[in-house]
Amino acid sequence: MATITVPTVVPSPAEDADQLHKAFAGWGTNEDLIISILAHRNAVQRRSIRQAYANGFGEDLLKDLDKELTSDFERCVLLWTLDPSERDAYLAYEATKMFTSSNWILMEIVCTRSSLELFAIRQAYHARYKKSLEEDVAAHIVGDFRKLLVPLVSSFRYEGPEVNTTLARSEAKILHEKILEKAYNHEEFIRIITTRSKAQLSATLNHYNDEFGQPINKDLKADPNDEYLKLVRATIKCLTAPEKHFEKVLRHAIVKLGTDEWALTRVVVTRSEVDMVRIKEQFHKRNSKPLDRAIASDTSGDYRKMLLALLGDEDA
Amino acid sequence: MATITVPTVVPSPAEDADQLHKAFAGWGTNEDLIISILAHRNAVQRRSIRQAYANGFGEDLLKDLDKELTSDFERCVLLWTLDPSERDAYLAYEATKMFTSSNWILMEIVCTRSSLELFAIRQAYHARYKKSLEEDVAAHIVGDFRKLLVPLVSSFRYEGPEVNTTLARSEAKILHEKILEKAYNHEEFIRIITTRSKAQLSATLNHYNDEFGQPINKDLKADPNDEYLKLVRATIKCLTAPEKHFEKVLRHAIVKLGTDEWALTRVVVTRSEVDMVRIKEQFHKRNSKPLDRAIASDTSGDYRKMLLALLGDEDA
Repeated sequence: MATITVPTVVPSPAEDADQLHKAFAGWGTNEDLIISILAHRNAVQRRSIRQAYANGFGEDLLKDLDKELTSDFERCVLLWTLDPSERDAYLAYEATKMFTSSNWILMEIVCTRSSLELFAIRQAYHARYKKSLEEDVAAHIVGDFRKLLVPLVSSFRYEGPEVNTTLARSEAKILHEKILEKAYNHEEFIRIITTRSKAQLSATLNHYNDEFGQPINKDLKADPNDEYLKLVRATIKCLTAPEKHFEKVLRHAIVKLGTDEWALTRVVVTRSEVDMVRIKEQFHKRNSKPLDRAIASDTSGDYRKMLLALLGDEDA
Repeated sequence: MATITVPTVVPSPAEDADQLHKAFAGWGTNEDLIISILAHRNAVQRRSIRQAYANGFGEDLLKDLDKELTSDFERCVLLWTLDPSERDAYLAYEATKMFTSSNWILMEIVCTRSSLELFAIRQAYHARYKKSLEEDVAAHIVGDFRKLLVPLVSSFRYEGPEVNTTLARSEAKILHEKILEKAYNHEEFIRIITTRSKAQLSATLNHYNDEFGQPINKDLKADPNDEYLKLVRATIKCLTAPEKHFEKVLRHAIVKLGTDEWALTRVVVTRSEVDMVRIKEQFHKRNSKPLDRAIASDTSGDYRKMLLALLGDEDA
C-alpha cells in the first residue's frame, strides 16, 4: 500500500523530461515544479523520465539534479529518482563504508525487501561497484555482526506460505536453549533467523511465545544496551513486522532533539511506494498523532514539501 | 566448448516429440531413436520438446522416459533432458538428503556454475522443493562443512576481470597465516574463499604461490585424509581450474575397481554443453588416453551409446 499519488493522465516521459529541464533553466531552480513531477511518478515512470532526459538533453538527470539542488532536499530527490534496486545498492554501499557504516541500515535493507528485490540489489551492486555486496560486508564487518549480516545479505528466502509445524516447535526450542545459554551468536541461532522463510520463522516465534511465556524479543533484552542484541531484535522485527521497525526508526528520527534527516529520508523514500500506508497507521497508533503532522512540524521548506508529497499529503 | 552435436537442420519440437512418442510405442522401446534425438539437442531445444510433448500428448516427457527406461541409461537420459538449472537443483537436493548426501557434489555444483546460473538453481530449488537451498544445507550439514558450504551456496560472486593487487597480496598473507596456524576453518580463511570473485581469488593464489614457494593446495595437504581439507582443496580447484576437478572425478569414476556410474553420468551430463572439450583435453593429457575410449571400455549398451553421443563421439 503505497502513499504516493500518480495523476490519472500522466504526461509522456519526454514531456516530463522537458519540464524538468525547464525547471533547471535560468537563474534559480523551480523546486515546486520538480516536486510536482518526480514525487508523483512511480519507479517505472521515473526510469522512463531519466531515459527520456538522457535522450533529449544528452545529460544524466541525476547529475543535473545534483547540480541544482542542495542539502536534505537534494538527497531526498536523488534517492527517490534512483531505481529502487540501485538506490538500495547505494544505501548498502554507504553502510559498508568506514564513515557512514551502519549494520542497522544493512540489516534493514536486506530483511525488508522481497527475495527477488534483494537479488536485484545484489546485481545492481555488481554493476555499480564491481564487487559483490556480501564480499564488502564480509570484508568490512567483524565478529558477531559479521556472523549475522553475511548470511542475511546472501539469503534468498523461500517466500511461499507453507509452514512446517513440527519444525517450528523444534526450532523454537533451539532458540530458547540458546537464549538460556546466552549464546546469541550460536551457529544454530543464526541459522534459523537467517535461512528460514518469513512464514516459517513467524510460526516458530509464535510457538516460542506460546511455549515460553513471552515474545522472543523480550528474552533478547537481557542487556538492553548490547549493540549486537539490539541488532538481533531489529532483525526479527524487520522479518516479521517491518511496519513496527519503520515506525520506530521514524519516531527516533523525529522525536529526538534535532531531526535525523538521513533516517527520515531513507524510510520515506524507500517505503512510500511499498507499505507506507501501514507504517502511517502504526505511527498514528503508537504516537497518537499522524505521521504527516509530526514530519511537517519537524522539517521545513522544499524538503518538507517533498516528504509530504511522498506521504500523499501535500497540505499538512 | 561443448561436445554435443546438433544437426544443421533441426526438426520442429513437435516432430521430435512425435518421434519420441513413437519410440515408446508398442512392445519394447526404441532406445537408439531416443538417443538420436535427445542427445543432439541443446538445452533450449530440449525444453521446447518437453513443452511440445506435453501439448501433443498431455503427458510429461520425463515421466514417460522414467516408465520406459531403466538403470544408468534412465538416469542419464532423465538428467540430460532436465533444464540445467532444474537438474542442478535436483542434484543439490539429493546431495542434502540423508542417504545420498554429498558435500562434494554440493560444492562442485555451486562453485563451477556462473553466478547467474547459481541464482537460477536457487530459484528452481524454491519452485520444486518449497524451501531454499541454503536453508537445507544449513539445516542438514554441521561443523566445518557447514561453515564452508553455506556461504558457497549463497554466494553471488562478482564476475568481472578486475583484480586488486594490493588486496591479493594482503589476503594471500592471511591465507598463509591461517594455514600455519592450521586454522583451516577460520572465518577469514573461509571469507576469502567464499566471497571473492574468481579473478581476484586466482590473483591471490598466484601471489601465494610466488610468495610462499608452492601452490596453496600443496600446503593444504597437511593431513591428506582429512575430509574437510579434501573439500577445501577441491573447492579451490573448482573455483580456479574446474577442468582439473572434473578430470579427477572422471578418472576416479572410471579407473577404480568397478565404475562409479553416478559420478560419470553427473560430469558428462552437466559438462557436455559447457566445457567438455577442455575436460577431454585435460583427461587425455593426464591419463595418456582419450576420455571416449576410457568410457567406452568401462560401460556398455545404451548407457555407453548415450554417454559417447554427449561426448561428440558415437563410434568410439
